[in-house]
Amino acid sequence: MTANAALGAHLQPFAGIPTFMRQPASRELAGADVCVMGVPVDSGVSHRPGCRFGPRKIRELSLLLWGYNNVLGVAPLDHLRLVDYGDVNAPPVDLRAAHTAIEAEAAAVLEAGCTLLALGGDHSISLPLLRAHARRHGALAVVHFDAHPDCWESEFAGHPYSHGTPFRHALQEGLIDPAAYVQIGIRGSTSSANDYADARALGARIITADEAQARGVPAVLAEVQAQMGRRKVYVSMDIDSADPAYAPGTGTPEVGGFSSRELLQYVRGLRDLHLVGFDIVEVSPPYDHGDITAVLAANLAFEFLSLLALQHKQG
Amino acid sequence: MTANAALGAHLQPFAGIPTFMRQPASRELAGADVCVMGVPVDSGVSHRPGCRFGPRKIRELSLLLWGYNNVLGVAPLDHLRLVDYGDVNAPPVDLRAAHTAIEAEAAAVLEAGCTLLALGGDHSISLPLLRAHARRHGALAVVHFDAHPDCWESEFAGHPYSHGTPFRHALQEGLIDPAAYVQIGIRGSTSSANDYADARALGARIITADEAQARGVPAVLAEVQAQMGRRKVYVSMDIDSADPAYAPGTGTPEVGGFSSRELLQYVRGLRDLHLVGFDIVEVSPPYDHGDITAVLAANLAFEFLSLLALQHKQG
Amino acid sequence: MTANAALGAHLQPFAGIPTFMRQPASRELAGADVCVMGVPVDSGVSHRPGCRFGPRKIRELSLLLWGYNNVLGVAPLDHLRLVDYGDVNAPPVDLRAAHTAIEAEAAAVLEAGCTLLALGGDHSISLPLLRAHARRHGALAVVHFDAHPDCWESEFAGHPYSHGTPFRHALQEGLIDPAAYVQIGIRGSTSSANDYADARALGARIITADEAQARGVPAVLAEVQAQMGRRKVYVSMDIDSADPAYAPGTGTPEVGGFSSRELLQYVRGLRDLHLVGFDIVEVSPPYDHGDITAVLAANLAFEFLSLLALQHKQG
Amino acid sequence: MTANAALGAHLQPFAGIPTFMRQPASRELAGADVCVMGVPVDSGVSHRPGCRFGPRKIRELSLLLWGYNNVLGVAPLDHLRLVDYGDVNAPPVDLRAAHTAIEAEAAAVLEAGCTLLALGGDHSISLPLLRAHARRHGALAVVHFDAHPDCWESEFAGHPYSHGTPFRHALQEGLIDPAAYVQIGIRGSTSSANDYADARALGARIITADEAQARGVPAVLAEVQAQMGRRKVYVSMDIDSADPAYAPGTGTPEVGGFSSRELLQYVRGLRDLHLVGFDIVEVSPPYDHGDITAVLAANLAFEFLSLLALQHKQG
Amino acid sequence: MTANAALGAHLQPFAGIPTFMRQPASRELAGADVCVMGVPVDSGVSHRPGCRFGPRKIRELSLLLWGYNNVLGVAPLDHLRLVDYGDVNAPPVDLRAAHTAIEAEAAAVLEAGCTLLALGGDHSISLPLLRAHARRHGALAVVHFDAHPDCWESEFAGHPYSHGTPFRHALQEGLIDPAAYVQIGIRGSTSSANDYADARALGARIITADEAQARGVPAVLAEVQAQMGRRKVYVSMDIDSADPAYAPGTGTPEVGGFSSRELLQYVRGLRDLHLVGFDIVEVSPPYDHGDITAVLAANLAFEFLSLLALQHKQG
Amino acid sequence: MTANAALGAHLQPFAGIPTFMRQPASRELAGADVCVMGVPVDSGVSHRPGCRFGPRKIRELSLLLWGYNNVLGVAPLDHLRLVDYGDVNAPPVDLRAAHTAIEAEAAAVLEAGCTLLALGGDHSISLPLLRAHARRHGALAVVHFDAHPDCWESEFAGHPYSHGTPFRHALQEGLIDPAAYVQIGIRGSTSSANDYADARALGARIITADEAQARGVPAVLAEVQAQMGRRKVYVSMDIDSADPAYAPGTGTPEVGGFSSRELLQYVRGLRDLHLVGFDIVEVSPPYDHGDITAVLAANLAFEFLSLLALQHKQG
Repeated sequence: MTANAALGAHLQPFAGIPTFMRQPASRELAGADVCVMGVPVDSGVSHRPGCRFGPRKIRELSLLLWGYNNVLGVAPLDHLRLVDYGDVNAPPVDLRAAHTAIEAEAAAVLEAGCTLLALGGDHSISLPLLRAHARRHGALAVVHFDAHPDCWESEFAGHPYSHGTPFRHALQEGLIDPAAYVQIGIRGSTSSANDYADARALGARIITADEAQARGVPAVLAEVQAQMGRRKVYVSMDIDSADPAYAPGTGTPEVGGFSSRELLQYVRGLRDLHLVGFDIVEVSPPYDHGDITAVLAANLAFEFLSLLALQHKQG
Repeated sequence: MTANAALGAHLQPFAGIPTFMRQPASRELAGADVCVMGVPVDSGVSHRPGCRFGPRKIRELSLLLWGYNNVLGVAPLDHLRLVDYGDVNAPPVDLRAAHTAIEAEAAAVLEAGCTLLALGGDHSISLPLLRAHARRHGALAVVHFDAHPDCWESEFAGHPYSHGTPFRHALQEGLIDPAAYVQIGIRGSTSSANDYADARALGARIITADEAQARGVPAVLAEVQAQMGRRKVYVSMDIDSADPAYAPGTGTPEVGGFSSRELLQYVRGLRDLHLVGFDIVEVSPPYDHGDITAVLAANLAFEFLSLLALQHKQG
Repeated sequence: MTANAALGAHLQPFAGIPTFMRQPASRELAGADVCVMGVPVDSGVSHRPGCRFGPRKIRELSLLLWGYNNVLGVAPLDHLRLVDYGDVNAPPVDLRAAHTAIEAEAAAVLEAGCTLLALGGDHSISLPLLRAHARRHGALAVVHFDAHPDCWESEFAGHPYSHGTPFRHALQEGLIDPAAYVQIGIRGSTSSANDYADARALGARIITADEAQARGVPAVLAEVQAQMGRRKVYVSMDIDSADPAYAPGTGTPEVGGFSSRELLQYVRGLRDLHLVGFDIVEVSPPYDHGDITAVLAANLAFEFLSLLALQHKQG
Repeated sequence: MTANAALGAHLQPFAGIPTFMRQPASRELAGADVCVMGVPVDSGVSHRPGCRFGPRKIRELSLLLWGYNNVLGVAPLDHLRLVDYGDVNAPPVDLRAAHTAIEAEAAAVLEAGCTLLALGGDHSISLPLLRAHARRHGALAVVHFDAHPDCWESEFAGHPYSHGTPFRHALQEGLIDPAAYVQIGIRGSTSSANDYADARALGARIITADEAQARGVPAVLAEVQAQMGRRKVYVSMDIDSADPAYAPGTGTPEVGGFSSRELLQYVRGLRDLHLVGFDIVEVSPPYDHGDITAVLAANLAFEFLSLLALQHKQG
Repeated sequence: MTANAALGAHLQPFAGIPTFMRQPASRELAGADVCVMGVPVDSGVSHRPGCRFGPRKIRELSLLLWGYNNVLGVAPLDHLRLVDYGDVNAPPVDLRAAHTAIEAEAAAVLEAGCTLLALGGDHSISLPLLRAHARRHGALAVVHFDAHPDCWESEFAGHPYSHGTPFRHALQEGLIDPAAYVQIGIRGSTSSANDYADARALGARIITADEAQARGVPAVLAEVQAQMGRRKVYVSMDIDSADPAYAPGTGTPEVGGFSSRELLQYVRGLRDLHLVGFDIVEVSPPYDHGDITAVLAANLAFEFLSLLALQHKQG
Repeated sequence: MTANAALGAHLQPFAGIPTFMRQPASRELAGADVCVMGVPVDSGVSHRPGCRFGPRKIRELSLLLWGYNNVLGVAPLDHLRLVDYGDVNAPPVDLRAAHTAIEAEAAAVLEAGCTLLALGGDHSISLPLLRAHARRHGALAVVHFDAHPDCWESEFAGHPYSHGTPFRHALQEGLIDPAAYVQIGIRGSTSSANDYADARALGARIITADEAQARGVPAVLAEVQAQMGRRKVYVSMDIDSADPAYAPGTGTPEVGGFSSRELLQYVRGLRDLHLVGFDIVEVSPPYDHGDITAVLAANLAFEFLSLLALQHKQG
């Protein structure tokens, strides 16, 4: 309470210490429904680093989230007790060690009964996050927004883990139910014709940006809904699913992507799924401007919280 | 004439002293049809300031306006004598005092028989501008482009005026005809479910960004036309009605907004209204890049001038 | 090969010396199919310079092009031997002299049997490039993406050549077949009502941004296809055909332009034309952010290479 | 403790939620020795705003302060219990009201027995801070680092308070002992020859940047020491005392200023004074780059804490 | 007068239309003592362009010049009638033609009896400016601040004029008195050992940055004074004489340069010379940050005006 | 030769493909005297990454190095055959693996008889570089410019290698002769009083920034000369030895550092040492502006090459 005053409850967005939506910064998870966890790791990127600053910046922009979601008709914090966990302690010098730390800290949060909203960090973090979730929930259905399939076997010769490989490993480790894995927004050049084929062979249903545009948001969502059914769903949102015009602050920008409007519609359209986890990754503030990428990420996080709140309300 | 030479008539955009479209900087309003007035005030913002530099930057980018509007088929300066009034003298230390100054200077311009094209500054300036216009024209019909309803009672406890409150006060002061007040582009989170309800209760017809997209520009414009009829219309354009991709240089960016193409179509679509005033606000150059927000604002101002010129031609 | 190692073949995008798609930097053109040539000239611009740094930056971002085009189903470098010619030696102090140098160097490349992919530089360079191409191929069919017609008689009094005039001169010099010249994406204000009329009188079919949007990409492409037929086609891509949200890094940004998705579709849609040359111009890195304009340019170049490869495969 | 974990104790600088030097964010002041208070107010500036984001950014860069001061030989947090108060709740719309809030919150902190380290915010905040300090300590000796005397009667006609006037008002209100008031670093143009004369007439000993350079840091410090004696000293540090090369991120940059090395020496040289309060103002992050201004401010704050710790050790 | 109101006399720096120090924009030179002329030409640069925006930006920052020079004890505008001429009409496409235009416009100003304060633009403009001055005054003594000797024979093969060659041509054309030509601040790498030798053979007294530092400002100024005597002196200030830390916004930055403090001292130290002209060149706003380079340039211009005013006072 | 043409020999700095000083990009080291090697690794940083882009950016700015060193009186490329090796292939995901790759590639270059000039990358790379050098030369004398001692035992718990630890490991591995190891420029806060003590206990002679300033460059150089004697000397230059004003583009900026002038004097002052290797590290372009940090780094590299050339001339 006095802590909240110091964090800046009731202040305008420019003031106060930026925790996520001004909720308490704490490791006391008892009684919390949702836990926002920063994962400031960018040693897995193949081009521009900087997404280690993603969590801090998204928190800062979350202060612009006024609380009530007009489209979904819910004020998420009226229904969910949210705690800002702060950031995972993960060393940049060794990505495997970082993954171990992430998995351990995420697992502890899940064991405390919290739903996790993870803020990356590069996309390699989805692997330890999925490991922690699968440990608790079993193999997960996954809705994966991205410009890239991220199903390479290896991006740096001799090193299996990086931001271009997490979903192959997750599939191979049985963390993802291959019958319920959809990729949305895939586009751009790849190493070879095999990239898409390999991802499909592993179980991915690839909905390219072109297909998504041609069919329209509702049709895509209907397919996703049909495939996911009542499975437990983990959502992984790579901000580079958005076009660079909407999300310049990312490591491997890919033209021809979604608008912010489309991404909002996609996330809101997941409302009837059984959602159990969410990550938003690859926000790289040094390459952002006017914080527009971080604002988008903060809003997508807010939509996810709104879905959780609806789920919670409905029991 | 020699003054114009110094300002840079006939120079390329990179050269010369930036008055609006290279028109004379003057307080001699006799004979002028339109007056561009800068209102460099940003003490009313709840997040990022900087829109005090909006007028200067929009003038600079107005040098890219070559003169002829191909879509509307008119060269506005062939039909309108335009004067660049320069900027209002409004102190940042006291927003009420700034409003008093704005109202007084705007009223003097209107009394001189000029139509006013005001360049903000934050959205709080629409209140004194509407006061000046209502004094001359009576209660106004208003077309209001924005991401936010700006109808809060108070944004800073104990202080009624700020950039989130002008339209409530304008309605309550009788400056706006509640039967002819449309908000277009509203979106994003609000403080509570009451925000939209309150605005509606005050008379606002809210067309959200989602509704606008679903119905399309022509249908929205038809409704606006129907509601406005032959009333005298004031147009208030908050640049954050555009998506942050198109207008990053603003104080409270809100994702899911209009494209520049849509905004151009909306303004051009007001051509059959009886337009009497225009403001364009919340352009914050310190957060812009490549001046894209200021270019958009300059073009929207140009479209408004083109509408005025058409009105003028038709007598 | 050892040269390639130094340039960084097989390195990740952040490493190595940036030649275009890591191909050899060489003036040995024997056996090469395509030659990427930088034209670092920006003395022809009427507003913001900086596009002299376009070639270097586009090369840098080309390292993100992984090699296989999923939409067109081709890996261009499997079918085409590409050489990075480096940059033309053209002095900024005299645009005519620069044009002479560009024409001479381009002609030498064409004489060596290479197709040219030129990276500008401002749009004035299309004139000497067209001179070189016409010398070899005769009058060309031209598909010209731009916000501006670039058909002025003169932009700087007494000086015929600049970035606003190349296509008038190309038409008047007989370099372009006036029966097969399409401009796509034209918009914004012009000097007078005559600008479009003049361009049309010279032979240009102007498809404005508004018309393009109203009719849709496939209809526009069908018309282009019909008009071009089996003629030899030169494509000139001014990056300001994109909206400033997608391409802020340019000299004379114009709102209301294409999205990156639309531009990709347009270029891919030229696949059945008989393509003989390509330039991409007006990328100005000092005004870019997050390199998004250069990423777009690099991808458009990649699409063009893909089209060439398809043409090559099919003999 | 668990709170500290969430804030990121023991994390590297890029991780964790940025409180000042990772100390607890709290309004529980009992037992605290020093209180860091953010004062995010910039309605008093005459040119570029943005210093409302100063407190947040200085906190962020304070994470680079490793804890031990090698020059002064002290680890301040070993001797001082520090609390991060968060930010004052001060409305931008009315500077007088903001000052009232600042004075009240500062007074409460002082009453709790804490020494205050205030992070601005524009220089107008020194007036309410001095009011609060004088209420507790009586008229203060003041060491004032600045490019400008800040002793104008009024900067905006009819409005006495702004960032160019606080010290005149403080002197006239008897908050400063005119026998012990030194300004260091003054330079640049002024409104008239009277500006310096007026400040001197009010009691200020002006040591211009030129004089400071000519005499050298030790001589200046000796004079300051002599003048201050054993009086209670308040230090006000306007970051624009540094040259724009060292502190670009400020509202009214003035060339010819101090280097960072000189400023560090000046602050360290105050070690034998009886220090009771400190503010550091005018850090404007939107105009900073590479955060160099905020790093300088964070280090100057750290030097002040080190002096306090030495004072504390010595009883 | 009403014109002045529109330009913003008495407004704070953030407001109003930026003419130099808010003086009238006019081509009426009768009765004017000094004329500020913008020369927005950057076609002569060998690396980064952008200094065409120098005049506009320096004017903008000149609004921070409060009017009274405390060090020199003079308010220049109390003694000098200053007119802002606006910008020369010089085409970027042909540097020779640009030089012809500059010389003609400068000559007309000088013939009107005004002293010229030229704001560049790249350093090539000093050649036509010296031509105009020499036409009126005969061969000039020149004090030239720069990192580079700018005495190359040719920088672009076959083209004698560019920003690296003006002083060779000026010497060869007899515009400069070789017995009274001093270069101050020269440093950095050159094409060969001959660069300095050539400049010296032409008459230049080169005081390198190293020599200047070793001897100190007063000793250097004494030598300059001795060499200049009572000759008519033209001062050419290349902003890259400052270190990139103080002047990042320039085309060919050279490390190891002067601080802003040193440059101020150098210009003030010219007070006993017979000054007849001044240019300040190579300010490139696209590469500046926080406008620190433009602030420095504006202050150096102010110092020069102060010297002129002193000269004027003393008859 | 034709390769050189493509790289841009004889072009101005804005043109051509940026190899270091336009020398050939090659892995053919036979006959080469010096090899410039990029080491694009930044997984060892504790705060801001981005120095993986250091090598590319320093190469780009090296195009401003005109060839002749006026202070040292030598044109290094007249005496040294220089090859640009390109970049090491080092994975960001595992710093130990990166170090193994760096050591192997560096060792191969040294075995080919080349002197190595390494461009980082973060400071952790000095460890594998010293390993390679010590393997060839035995334990090295080291002159180390830095703000930080970089002698921590571990920066990330459980991980010995990172940018804060290389010199402890180098000393412990016997790569550095503890009798000839000088650190220059050390300053700022440290973890504890032990940081300096520990470094000293390991053999480092720490010359702090304060001591360096107090004694002056010549005195410091004399001590360095005396300590190094005729030993083989490796120079490691952390760009953060410069003040953030001069080198903002770095990961852990520390105020109170050297000016560019001082750093140039320090490097030139090493001319009588027996130099065998050099690295320049921690240049982080995403945090630079106007490329001033990269220009400084390129010039320091040029000074080192000049020293090598002098050594070479003298046999």
